Amino acid sequence: MKLMRVGPLGQEKPALLDKDGKIRDLSAHVADIGGAAIGPEGLAKIAAIDPASLPELTADRIGACVAGTGKFICIGLNYSDHAAETGAEVPPEPVIFMKATSAIVGPNDDVLIPRGSEKTDWEVELGVVIGKTAKYVSEADAMDYVAGYCVSHDVSERAFQTERAGQWTKGKSCDTFGPIGPWLVTKDEIADPQNLSMWLTVNGEKMQNGSSKTMVYGVAYLVSYLSQFMSLHPGDVISTGTPPGVGLGMKPQRFLKAGDVVELGIEGLGTQKQTFKADA
Amino acid sequence: MKLMRVGPLGQEKPALLDKDGKIRDLSAHVADIGGAAIGPEGLAKIAAIDPASLPELTADRIGACVAGTGKFICIGLNYSDHAAETGAEVPPEPVIFMKATSAIVGPNDDVLIPRGSEKTDWEVELGVVIGKTAKYVSEADAMDYVAGYCVSHDVSERAFQTERAGQWTKGKSCDTFGPIGPWLVTKDEIADPQNLSMWLTVNGEKMQNGSSKTMVYGVAYLVSYLSQFMSLHPGDVISTGTPPGVGLGMKPQRFLKAGDVVELGIEGLGTQKQTFKADA
Repeated sequence: MKLMRVGPLGQEKPALLDKDGKIRDLSAHVADIGGAAIGPEGLAKIAAIDPASLPELTADRIGACVAGTGKFICIGLNYSDHAAETGAEVPPEPVIFMKATSAIVGPNDDVLIPRGSEKTDWEVELGVVIGKTAKYVSEADAMDYVAGYCVSHDVSERAFQTERAGQWTKGKSCDTFGPIGPWLVTKDEIADPQNLSMWLTVNGEKMQNGSSKTMVYGVAYLVSYLSQFMSLHPGDVISTGTPPGVGLGMKPQRFLKAGDVVELGIEGLGTQKQTFKADA
Repeated sequence: MKLMRVGPLGQEKPALLDKDGKIRDLSAHVADIGGAAIGPEGLAKIAAIDPASLPELTADRIGACVAGTGKFICIGLNYSDHAAETGAEVPPEPVIFMKATSAIVGPNDDVLIPRGSEKTDWEVELGVVIGKTAKYVSEADAMDYVAGYCVSHDVSERAFQTERAGQWTKGKSCDTFGPIGPWLVTKDEIADPQNLSMWLTVNGEKMQNGSSKTMVYGVAYLVSYLSQFMSLHPGDVISTGTPPGVGLGMKPQRFLKAGDVVELGIEGLGTQKQTFKADA
C-alpha cells in the first residue's frame, strides 16, 4: 500500500493512493498515518478495506508521509562512493546522528535556506519507517519491525554541519530540512530495499544517480544495530545515507541558492520536488 | 511555581507543588504540563488558580516534568573545567548534540545500563524548558521563550559516545538515559540561572560539586544561538552541559555498575535519585 497524508500543514488527513492513482480518505478508519495504525495489525486492518469504498480526496498539498515521528535518525557515510567524495573513510560501524523532528515537512513543500547559510546541500536517501517497538532485535528479525519505506531528503548545511564546532546535528536540523514522502510504501511492495535506483536533480540537471545496492550497512542491519542502543518506536524514521553526487563532493563545490528547484526520487517510492527559498 | 507530573509511566497527571509541599492535581485545568500550558498565557492561567482549591494527590511516582518534548538538545563541553577534565578544549561556539526523546524518564526511575556497556557515566545538568516557539531570537529577548528550569541527568555511555564510530548521540540516547525533573520550576522563581549550585553523588560519595556560574555559554545565549539553527518549540528541553567530576575525567576512570545509586540536585530545582540496573 501507499499511505499518505494530505491537506494543510498540521491538518493533514490520512489517506491511501489506490491502484488508479486516486487519493482515498482513510480518516474514518485511522486517526493518522502513525502509531498503532502502522503496526502489523494496523496495516492489516487498512489492507482489508476496499479502496473503492473510501471517499476520494483532492490533494492541494501532500504532507509528510508519517505522523508522530519521535526520532529522525540518520546514518552517515553509508555509501562507500559517497564517503570517498567527501574525503571520509567508510566507518567500521554505522555513524548515527539525529535530525530534529521539527525539520520534517511534506515532499513538495518549500525548503528554507537558513539565515547565514552559504553551503546548503542535497542528499537523496532511502527512509525506513518503524512500525513496531524494537529493542535488541536481531538482524534476522529486524524487518518485522519495519512498516515500510519513503523518499527522504536529508537537506544539509555543510558549514553548520562541520565548520561550526562539532556534531553534525547543527547542520541537519534546520526547519524544513526534512522532506519525507510522498508515500509510506509498505514493505510488501518493495521486493528488495537493497536494489532501488535513486536520483536527484537540481534545476533539471542530474546530480545523484545511484542505487541502494551500494549501501554499506543495509536496512535490516541498521534496524538491528540501532535497537542495541535505543528503542525504536512506531513512526520513527531512519534515513539511511546518501549515494554520491552531493554538492560538497564536487570540484568546485556547489550549493543551493534561493530559486533552485530540487527533484528527487527512489524506485517504487515516488518523487519529491522542492523550491528553495531564503528564510525570512 | 513548581509544576510536575505524577502517576504511572504514560498516565501521569499534571500537578503543582504548593508552598506546603503538597502535590495538587491540575488535571481539571490543563491537559498536561507541556504545549500551550507552559506558554506565557498558560502559565498565567495556572498561576491564577488558588492551589488550596485543587485536590491533593499522592505521588507514588513522579514522571518527567514536561510532556511532549520534541527535541532534547544537549550542549557539550559547556563548563571550562569539565572540558579540561575530558581533555577537550572549550569550543569556540556551542557544541550541540541530540539526545533521543525516548530516553526521557522520571527523576527517580531506575536507569538501565544497556547491554554491552562498560562506561556508563553521570552528568548533572541545568535543564531549560522552552515555553514559546523561538526562531531567530536575540539574546536580549531569549528569556521570553523560556518557561523554566529543571534538573537534567545527561546519563552517558562513554564507549558508545566516542569509541563506536562518530557522533555522540549513540552514547546519549539509550532508554532511561534522560531523567528530568522532579519539577519544572518557572523562571520567576529563579533569580539568576547562572548562579545555581549543583551536585551529584554516587552511593553517597560526592562526585560533582559545581555551579552554573562557570557555564561558558549561558542560558539566554544558548536559546538565542540554537534558534538561529532551528525553531525551538514548547516542551523542548535544552540540557546545558555538566560541571567537572564525571567518571570519564577521573584517574583512574570510574563508571556505574548495577546497584549503584546516583543522587543529584540543583539549587531551587529539587533532587533526583536513581538506582542503576542492568538492562534485561
